[in-house]
Amino acid sequence: MSIVMKPTATKEDVQVVIKLIKSAGLKADVSSGQFQTVIGIIGDENKISFDQIKALSGVYDVNRIQVPYRLISRSYIPHDVVVKVRDVSIGGENEPVMIAGPCSIESYEQMFRIAKKVKEAGAHILRGGAYKPRTSLHSFQGLGLDGLKHLHNVGKDLDIPTVSEVRSEFDVEMVAKYCDMLQIGARNMYNQDLIEQAAKQGKPILFKRGFSAQIDEYLSFAERIVASGNRKLLLCERGIMPLGGSFKSQTRFTLDLNAIPVLRRETPFPVIADPSHGTGRKDLIIPMSRSSIAAGAHGLMVEVHDRPQEALSDANQALPPEDLGKVIRMSKLLFQTIKQSETPFTGDISNGSTHQS
Amino acid sequence: MSIVMKPTATKEDVQVVIKLIKSAGLKADVSSGQFQTVIGIIGDENKISFDQIKALSGVYDVNRIQVPYRLISRSYIPHDVVVKVRDVSIGGENEPVMIAGPCSIESYEQMFRIAKKVKEAGAHILRGGAYKPRTSLHSFQGLGLDGLKHLHNVGKDLDIPTVSEVRSEFDVEMVAKYCDMLQIGARNMYNQDLIEQAAKQGKPILFKRGFSAQIDEYLSFAERIVASGNRKLLLCERGIMPLGGSFKSQTRFTLDLNAIPVLRRETPFPVIADPSHGTGRKDLIIPMSRSSIAAGAHGLMVEVHDRPQEALSDANQALPPEDLGKVIRMSKLLFQTIKQSETPFTGDISNGSTHQS
Amino acid sequence: MSIVMKPTATKEDVQVVIKLIKSAGLKADVSSGQFQTVIGIIGDENKISFDQIKALSGVYDVNRIQVPYRLISRSYIPHDVVVKVRDVSIGGENEPVMIAGPCSIESYEQMFRIAKKVKEAGAHILRGGAYKPRTSLHSFQGLGLDGLKHLHNVGKDLDIPTVSEVRSEFDVEMVAKYCDMLQIGARNMYNQDLIEQAAKQGKPILFKRGFSAQIDEYLSFAERIVASGNRKLLLCERGIMPLGGSFKSQTRFTLDLNAIPVLRRETPFPVIADPSHGTGRKDLIIPMSRSSIAAGAHGLMVEVHDRPQEALSDANQALPPEDLGKVIRMSKLLFQTIKQSETPFTGDISNGSTHQS
Amino acid sequence: MSIVMKPTATKEDVQVVIKLIKSAGLKADVSSGQFQTVIGIIGDENKISFDQIKALSGVYDVNRIQVPYRLISRSYIPHDVVVKVRDVSIGGENEPVMIAGPCSIESYEQMFRIAKKVKEAGAHILRGGAYKPRTSLHSFQGLGLDGLKHLHNVGKDLDIPTVSEVRSEFDVEMVAKYCDMLQIGARNMYNQDLIEQAAKQGKPILFKRGFSAQIDEYLSFAERIVASGNRKLLLCERGIMPLGGSFKSQTRFTLDLNAIPVLRRETPFPVIADPSHGTGRKDLIIPMSRSSIAAGAHGLMVEVHDRPQEALSDANQALPPEDLGKVIRMSKLLFQTIKQSETPFTGDISNGSTHQS
Repeated sequence: MSIVMKPTATKEDVQVVIKLIKSAGLKADVSSGQFQTVIGIIGDENKISFDQIKALSGVYDVNRIQVPYRLISRSYIPHDVVVKVRDVSIGGENEPVMIAGPCSIESYEQMFRIAKKVKEAGAHILRGGAYKPRTSLHSFQGLGLDGLKHLHNVGKDLDIPTVSEVRSEFDVEMVAKYCDMLQIGARNMYNQDLIEQAAKQGKPILFKRGFSAQIDEYLSFAERIVASGNRKLLLCERGIMPLGGSFKSQTRFTLDLNAIPVLRRETPFPVIADPSHGTGRKDLIIPMSRSSIAAGAHGLMVEVHDRPQEALSDANQALPPEDLGKVIRMSKLLFQTIKQSETPFTGDISNGSTHQS
Repeated sequence: MSIVMKPTATKEDVQVVIKLIKSAGLKADVSSGQFQTVIGIIGDENKISFDQIKALSGVYDVNRIQVPYRLISRSYIPHDVVVKVRDVSIGGENEPVMIAGPCSIESYEQMFRIAKKVKEAGAHILRGGAYKPRTSLHSFQGLGLDGLKHLHNVGKDLDIPTVSEVRSEFDVEMVAKYCDMLQIGARNMYNQDLIEQAAKQGKPILFKRGFSAQIDEYLSFAERIVASGNRKLLLCERGIMPLGGSFKSQTRFTLDLNAIPVLRRETPFPVIADPSHGTGRKDLIIPMSRSSIAAGAHGLMVEVHDRPQEALSDANQALPPEDLGKVIRMSKLLFQTIKQSETPFTGDISNGSTHQS
Repeated sequence: MSIVMKPTATKEDVQVVIKLIKSAGLKADVSSGQFQTVIGIIGDENKISFDQIKALSGVYDVNRIQVPYRLISRSYIPHDVVVKVRDVSIGGENEPVMIAGPCSIESYEQMFRIAKKVKEAGAHILRGGAYKPRTSLHSFQGLGLDGLKHLHNVGKDLDIPTVSEVRSEFDVEMVAKYCDMLQIGARNMYNQDLIEQAAKQGKPILFKRGFSAQIDEYLSFAERIVASGNRKLLLCERGIMPLGGSFKSQTRFTLDLNAIPVLRRETPFPVIADPSHGTGRKDLIIPMSRSSIAAGAHGLMVEVHDRPQEALSDANQALPPEDLGKVIRMSKLLFQTIKQSETPFTGDISNGSTHQS
Repeated sequence: MSIVMKPTATKEDVQVVIKLIKSAGLKADVSSGQFQTVIGIIGDENKISFDQIKALSGVYDVNRIQVPYRLISRSYIPHDVVVKVRDVSIGGENEPVMIAGPCSIESYEQMFRIAKKVKEAGAHILRGGAYKPRTSLHSFQGLGLDGLKHLHNVGKDLDIPTVSEVRSEFDVEMVAKYCDMLQIGARNMYNQDLIEQAAKQGKPILFKRGFSAQIDEYLSFAERIVASGNRKLLLCERGIMPLGGSFKSQTRFTLDLNAIPVLRRETPFPVIADPSHGTGRKDLIIPMSRSSIAAGAHGLMVEVHDRPQEALSDANQALPPEDLGKVIRMSKLLFQTIKQSETPFTGDISNGSTHQS
């Protein structure tokens, strides 16, 4: 952190700042020019309040130098982290992974029928929602515990790892009991208590970016997972708020592909893209899947439904199973093509400088 | 809900839609013109999935006619609801109410010292945070249960009702035990489980708008409180995400004053404005307080600190106690001036048409 | 400008920065602490490129200290500027001014009929659009030169000053010939050539904020007017882009009332609010007019139409003439009430610190 | 357009709507159900005002059915349009095209030096700015006519087509005289007069999306080019406004890759991506170039500078020439790989339905 004093700051103003820094157990590095003084902080800048310093007399501005998500940054963990969900390895140099399945678990039969098609198409992990975050209390809220059991049984019967979203703190243990990976959804990105409890279960966490969260903000919350002792973190870009205005947006959200190389550069953890929620349009899933892999995504998460007119939620954004295989094969093809080219994914990271905006 | 079919839709397409409507226990009202068919839904449109209909063949667009937050709408509850927090009446024709206090509870002494000044200045309800929602895990997270007890004791010793934020589902009962009103913060607006548990405690709920939530979305979540059997709902506008871009925003958030007359027109519940969080700037609290009251706010929520350089959070946006009295007197003056004028607050509501955007 | 070097920056890196500063005719103020060097710039920091410095090796971050709109800042012109449009004085301690009229000029008769009602209601300046900025080429584009002549004649016949929007550079002289004030609309906020040509006509300029422009960006473009030698500048807040998302916004734009005290604090020029465009809803014009005046607006701009069902544009956001008088009387009442209170408008400015975000 | 009446609408309300439709020379298609009436419009719905209808009594909502940019829609022009800039063919099945060069033209020597490297790397069209749109009047504004001449001469000397931005209506003819293609920048997307004048010059137009424009809004302005008789239209996605908030954005803009398949589906015109402006970060140009091509971009526009520390503008977002060749070769490789795969670009368009959101 460096504190830029106003040209009109007095010696007393400078002393108050230094005193505050020392009271937090840190060292102050004072640089007095002819016209202006700047004070650097030596030590963990997270120990001191940004706000409190800004409120002091004579302070012009305060700059962070340390990234706000140090524990998961590449400067702290330089090499790619590979996360295993049962026997599926995600991240690093591994081929892209496909997480697929219906939006909601509706019954054992529906789940088994779709899961079978999804597995045959080559998907690696099965998704299905038991606790659905819903805007309206009048919408289908998910089957809850029954849904979890269906998912668990289908996963066992078809030998495919499973992931499901956890919404309430009270359900964390149940979701961890029945699933191989816990998903924290976009709406719960700011829910620090849920994040920490989920992390403590020790299973991999698929942590989605909030739809109005800056990347640095997102990573600050992701840091809580690793700080809770769980390094099995998967990041997931799932679309940000579209532009407002009097015209309707063509897409429900804006899948932010810029986030993928940025996340890979800032952190060593795997990055997943979700083009289903990210666009909300079935016809954009294929082009946005290609685009995500080319940007460097370690995997995709796609909603699949074989009978969309019967789906209880998100029917508009589900891929038919027959297209899923095409997307999986295309992802591998693009991955290999880029990996062996002059501009491999590792190049996106290697010549990077430190964090800046 | 009215479903507009494409000009190219077949009779079979129309039949599929009708069948779906009937299977939800609703009636279909078919209007076939020469070139186009439109199907209206008679009954509670919340019983049917918007998404599922949009995914059907031949459907061009689907329009909601019923507001998505019917249970708290003025068409359902026409007259203003007055909420009582102990003996303080908020909403309707009552004078504006002031909720004030420090951002964080730091100790009994700090709380008592500020609360005393706040009460002398004329504030009606005391605020103080025990469980702080924080971006960084390295920041001060609040005193937790000890903080609640300090707040409770100070409220009792000074005879002033209290409000504090609840963040984790596990803490809901404790907050309800020690405080007269529960606050659900902006980051938890989408946390439906927390909302419902808090509502079930039966105490008044101060429910803040999420900083990237549309008003209709906000009200859909607010409806959950009333649907849980708790009519003691206070809405609170606390600032929306500022514009992005390469220039720094002058304010941390953008206090959305348009929301105040819109909320008053759409619902009968009291509307509070929070100019402290809404702007993040101490020097804007006074003008934005005036502006909020003139827009029709039933009350204000303001952070107050007497020693900002010692505050453990949000020091930049706290009003000094000496200004609080001025704001309270000004609020009453403006309220009375407008009430007796040619353009009283009731006029903002009375000639309103039904919900439209 | 202060340039923060990375902890790893070499002496050569520092020398390159100093050389660049000197080559621009400026002085460098080097502050070398034990761990970090900071270089201040003495002189007009606008002479040097922000981008170029950021691209240098060893540079961590660059902070502006000088506001980017120095020529119109309060530090440069401390006292309120009063702008006269013919004999109407706007800004400073003057009572709020009302600019009113139809969106589009449709004929001499329509203009005269509405202008007469508008003047009788107490409005000070007459507005009417001759060159309409339109999204669709299929919409009504305005009467052009004929419209200007109608406006001019009505203004003369009823003895009321006029304002109209200029859209094309080719029309600047004509608009300046026929109107007392030139309006530059939100969509042309970035049109630096149009701004400069309009400014050079010497008549007052009503300069609207772009709907996605930060305040500092807006003021940077406003500075061009004064730099062109024209100090007759009126700023105008007219609504920013509403939040995006899957819910429809309740308002077409979000009138940003935070902007009013910020603009008054940053610059000495008068600030107008436009609740018609700012909300796009007739029923919000009265509450948002009150709210604008309470925030410190020096005047309002309101669309008025007596026969909205015949209006060729913006029928949804026009106030009926009978309500205009109420708004004008209310504005004066609020202005006087606040002026004589404990929290007068001057207080919003006087204890302000220098520019910060 | 279909007009949904309120359940409470009277027969008179319906008659007023029908009369208005007929007075515009259109036919009304009335669908009266038991509970609700819907009125369709037969004919060119652009002939009637959306606003005016919404302001009528008894009208609940109005839906557009015709896209607002009919003249450039795929339903009007079904097959891909290939645009030629001198002998370079862009769009349709052609390999991706590279437009490259420095942000600003600084001298003949600088231009020649960079252009030579750019051409050797395989770029097809040379870019360079003579009239720079700048926020600050204190920044470098471009060399103007001298710059155009340098660009023209370098283009002739190296036999490479050129493109430059036109900013002022007064300069349109000059830019058209000296360049092979005219660029209209993001800030001028709403400048309908400039658009129409540029189009009338008959040369190809590279028309950039405004950074806060919805796609439908963007296409409505693009339609003006074709309506002016010029079918040589290139669309260009160059980044939208990043999310706001208290955290700094990692990128200056958010390159919106969703826009690429959407634009290709909606219109037959070529789509270019600009990852330099779209991200503002040199280190993201390579991954975002890959991602753009995979999304279906017909070409890229990239800023190149060999001596960024000397650049007079945008030094942070320029690619070194040695990387340009890599990007060009990679683009061709990805294009061929995808074209011959199971999910070719044509698939993104072929099974598309009509416009919906």
